[in-house]
Amino acid sequence: MPTIPVTHALRAVPFTQVTVDDLFWTPRLRANREHTLPAQYRHCRDTGRLDAFALAWQPGDPREPHIFWDSDVAKWVEAASYSLAEYPDAALQAQVEDVAVRIAGAQQADGYLNTHYTAVEPDKRWSNLRDCHELYCAGHLIEAAVAHFQATGSRVLLDAMCRYADYIGIVFGTGAGQRPGYCGHEEIELALVKLAGVTGETRYRDLAAYFIDQRGQQPHYFDTEAVARGENPADYWAKTYAYCQADRPVRELATVAGHAVRAMYLYSAMTDLAARGDATLRPALDRLWDDVTLKKLYLTGGLGPSRHNEGFTADYDLPNDTAYAETCAAIGLVFWAHRMLLLEGDCRYADVLERALYNGAISGVSLDGESFFYENPLASAGAHHRQGWFDCACCPPNAARLIASLGGYLYATRADGVQVNLYAAGTAALTLPDGAPLTLRVATRYPWDGQITLTVDAAPAAWTLWLRIPGWCRAWRVTVNGEAVAPEEARGAIGLHRTWQPGDVVLLDLAMPIERMEAHPRVAADHGRVALQRGPLVYCVEGIDHPVSVHQLTLPADATLSVRFAPDLLGGVAVIEGEARVLDASGWTHTLYRPAGAPVSQPVALTAIPYCCWDNRAPGEMAVWLATGPAGR
Amino acid sequence: MPTIPVTHALRAVPFTQVTVDDLFWTPRLRANREHTLPAQYRHCRDTGRLDAFALAWQPGDPREPHIFWDSDVAKWVEAASYSLAEYPDAALQAQVEDVAVRIAGAQQADGYLNTHYTAVEPDKRWSNLRDCHELYCAGHLIEAAVAHFQATGSRVLLDAMCRYADYIGIVFGTGAGQRPGYCGHEEIELALVKLAGVTGETRYRDLAAYFIDQRGQQPHYFDTEAVARGENPADYWAKTYAYCQADRPVRELATVAGHAVRAMYLYSAMTDLAARGDATLRPALDRLWDDVTLKKLYLTGGLGPSRHNEGFTADYDLPNDTAYAETCAAIGLVFWAHRMLLLEGDCRYADVLERALYNGAISGVSLDGESFFYENPLASAGAHHRQGWFDCACCPPNAARLIASLGGYLYATRADGVQVNLYAAGTAALTLPDGAPLTLRVATRYPWDGQITLTVDAAPAAWTLWLRIPGWCRAWRVTVNGEAVAPEEARGAIGLHRTWQPGDVVLLDLAMPIERMEAHPRVAADHGRVALQRGPLVYCVEGIDHPVSVHQLTLPADATLSVRFAPDLLGGVAVIEGEARVLDASGWTHTLYRPAGAPVSQPVALTAIPYCCWDNRAPGEMAVWLATGPAGR
Repeated sequence: MPTIPVTHALRAVPFTQVTVDDLFWTPRLRANREHTLPAQYRHCRDTGRLDAFALAWQPGDPREPHIFWDSDVAKWVEAASYSLAEYPDAALQAQVEDVAVRIAGAQQADGYLNTHYTAVEPDKRWSNLRDCHELYCAGHLIEAAVAHFQATGSRVLLDAMCRYADYIGIVFGTGAGQRPGYCGHEEIELALVKLAGVTGETRYRDLAAYFIDQRGQQPHYFDTEAVARGENPADYWAKTYAYCQADRPVRELATVAGHAVRAMYLYSAMTDLAARGDATLRPALDRLWDDVTLKKLYLTGGLGPSRHNEGFTADYDLPNDTAYAETCAAIGLVFWAHRMLLLEGDCRYADVLERALYNGAISGVSLDGESFFYENPLASAGAHHRQGWFDCACCPPNAARLIASLGGYLYATRADGVQVNLYAAGTAALTLPDGAPLTLRVATRYPWDGQITLTVDAAPAAWTLWLRIPGWCRAWRVTVNGEAVAPEEARGAIGLHRTWQPGDVVLLDLAMPIERMEAHPRVAADHGRVALQRGPLVYCVEGIDHPVSVHQLTLPADATLSVRFAPDLLGGVAVIEGEARVLDASGWTHTLYRPAGAPVSQPVALTAIPYCCWDNRAPGEMAVWLATGPAGR
Repeated sequence: MPTIPVTHALRAVPFTQVTVDDLFWTPRLRANREHTLPAQYRHCRDTGRLDAFALAWQPGDPREPHIFWDSDVAKWVEAASYSLAEYPDAALQAQVEDVAVRIAGAQQADGYLNTHYTAVEPDKRWSNLRDCHELYCAGHLIEAAVAHFQATGSRVLLDAMCRYADYIGIVFGTGAGQRPGYCGHEEIELALVKLAGVTGETRYRDLAAYFIDQRGQQPHYFDTEAVARGENPADYWAKTYAYCQADRPVRELATVAGHAVRAMYLYSAMTDLAARGDATLRPALDRLWDDVTLKKLYLTGGLGPSRHNEGFTADYDLPNDTAYAETCAAIGLVFWAHRMLLLEGDCRYADVLERALYNGAISGVSLDGESFFYENPLASAGAHHRQGWFDCACCPPNAARLIASLGGYLYATRADGVQVNLYAAGTAALTLPDGAPLTLRVATRYPWDGQITLTVDAAPAAWTLWLRIPGWCRAWRVTVNGEAVAPEEARGAIGLHRTWQPGDVVLLDLAMPIERMEAHPRVAADHGRVALQRGPLVYCVEGIDHPVSVHQLTLPADATLSVRFAPDLLGGVAVIEGEARVLDASGWTHTLYRPAGAPVSQPVALTAIPYCCWDNRAPGEMAVWLATGPAGR
């Protein structure tokens, strides 16, 4: 199979070569395998999403295939395939094969494959790319096919999707008789890059590049298309093509805007293409990265504060209680940050990846794997609660595919050796620069503490072991076989250059104190507030642990805080405990407002838990950012 | 004309006997007369609302009379009538008469009068009281008729509305052949009490009492009605009849809930009936009053924080930036508080009336009278801006009728004399207990300062002049003809008992310092924040007056604040000036979050303006509640 040149600084080690046996992640992976995937299969089956591929829908049948449905099934196939690669399961495999055959069976003679536009509105094919997710669904089907092929070796979906992609390549383009269009919801672009990767066919990468290059060009395709439908383009409900990052050519994008998930998928694809030779995309990517990470990102790695556009608003507009922060957007940021990390090799991208992964992405899934958040606010009055499924069900299977492929985010190879980007206990089968195999065994209780033991198992050879020093870490120590060493420090990592011997043991000790984080002064919502963070985990307080409303708590600057591992709480988590203050309400008789006096407060025991574990007991109040004063005494 | 006994402690002096010539209010009244009323007439005309009364709509005509439309026109007639009573205007009078004739001309032979259900859905009359505002529109037409009669003496609308009310009294009730229904949007109840008042016909009061008594009874009328429409009552979009205060009989209501305007109109009517002999309504009214004023009221007198139900949520849930706080709800609170004040004579009700009137109600109207807020948040990132009209146009004419009838809220008569409830410069023609006339002249710059001079002009007689001491006032002084006196203090007022001589001059001096207000500790949104208030006016800061985002400002507890009257600003307002602090962002290089350090801040000049005057310059940021620290130095 030919390979397409990639100018990555790092090359990701695929999840298929990584085994995770980790205090933090193994329960998540198990819940994903044992509960999430079966439940989502049932939802897809019971709502008619699987039957939709039979194309037998008739007017009057209530289970009309919705324009999103194919993508939900595709993401389940992708997630299930990842799981099968690591945890063979005959029953799951049979389900996946059945679904793959159903999907492939819905393909039309010309290669087209979409249940809604085949069974429900066959005369409307490609009539509304702006709103109707047709190429988005194609993209998810392609990602499913790639995952299915990688995990099982089966070509049943992959061949079908190559035919579909070839057909799409005929329909779309700037040539004579082609439609100069692209999808309102980006996704197919990154999927086509993946398809190019597994097939070695550059035409799929080129089709992705076409979709990227054509986006936002004038005359505007969405205008032309709307007129062709008999609509006035000015009646577009979102008012601006910035909603779908199509207000200008992508190389001219200056700020992140619009629907957050769409933006993340677009930037991911742009990064893929930048890594495959298109240097002209880099300036925009750098601008967009700075814009989102310096002005538009929640501490949790959540993003897109507004429900209105499921996306971005103004700089520093990061309200906590109304934060939309869709689970899929944090997952999309993981995708993008991982691609930027590989492209550049700079661990500052891994810092953002880790923040989103450990907080705002997995907060979307309950610990039992059976219920999900669509929105991930940073404060709740008590009504926000996970659900088993959604009519618009993008988030649950997106979380499933992320968690099932976790191992793929941990390690990378590079020209001079290997690099560990995230720390989770387990084993990785790596390849050294000279092609020799390396087995790296990692033992750690991360993120509950910062001690990581890495054992090298390879033939004696000289290469460099690069270990990421997380951005949150302000002090670290490293030894090799018990002896202190002075590694090279570069781009957020330390490099241990040596001739490694089998059994060499590296101990990395990352100091992991409790940090009181503050937000940039322009973040109005966090004014006068701090959030607790320890290691990669952002903490929150829940109503269930406190005798008063958590929104009344004040955390004085001099409050003593300590960490305790609570093995029986939430599957075992490190809690942060201390003494907060609560304003005394006893003097408030018969008034809601009064002239301000010196605050009078009482002590109250504070218990903070990891944000990613909230809402796993009774639904109730939650807050990430705590007022710091004036508390009074 | 017979009169219906009313057990009011106070009897309001109607606006027709009050002349307002006031620094604060006269420009508002003039803008209402010269801009608001003409503009709203044009909107009603140009949108087809006036033509709708011709009942000539045909399918296909785009200007289909909407179920709300009659109420918009009715409120305009009511407001215009109030204005005519005080400021004769031949052109306006001609418009009012024309509209009155148009309305009356739409009456059906049986007395029914509703443009939508006559012209558009004649077969659907009374089919959906829950959602379709049919009796609500009738109520506003009745209020218009009463105002029109009072202002002009014309019976053209009054007679038509008596016929309509008589017809409604035949249709609705618990008797054989009657519909045991009531309106989903309360309004007709208080209107019928007004109609009873001007006609002396007790049957209209009894019909109001029927609607109140029947509300929320089982079997539930809205269930029955939904089933009759072929619908499942469980499919009610609002999920609960608490949305329209019909989840239980009104005497069992324990907490304010649901749509805020509806709630205020219901409670107003309940108070009307309590004042007319139904003591069984009082316990619920007392509970509801305490609930809203102690747990659910913004500092501005705004209420109903949620956009979702245009209404109430949980206790102490008073978010600032997302506050819905509909203009109509604050106006409804003015109506209710005025009725409670009259019923009880206790000035604590006037305190709430004044808070809502001077802040959250008139904030709904621009100073030029030409644009309106539907929502009145207490913080804005800059996008909230008044508009000239709304598809759902309840607020603009509601504000117009409130402002046009302002004089009616100032004075009251009582068994032992007269009482001044609100202070505005002008003249009132009152009647003393013995029937003798009294002219009271008031000179003041209130609310810009707290000095009020009242001159008595009446034949020598012994009676008591009661002057309200506002709840916000912590020190006051009163003299009669320059001599200090020691008045009786009772129920929030001071009573000056004496044998008054013509020309007696009373000087009341209300200390009006700048107050830093704080909210109850359970109001999470205002945690660690203060708001500035001076006299009845709540202040806010606007972006246009500050070099940094107002959401970054911190107001330390020891900040010196001073008042300055700025004659050229916003038509002349007292501004509060001082030194705030702004956190120093210069150390924030390339990060959005960091471990919290000692805060470093810089001074910044603070200028606060009355909340009721915000958004009268360029649209921009606004905040009522300011962080108090930690500010650093």
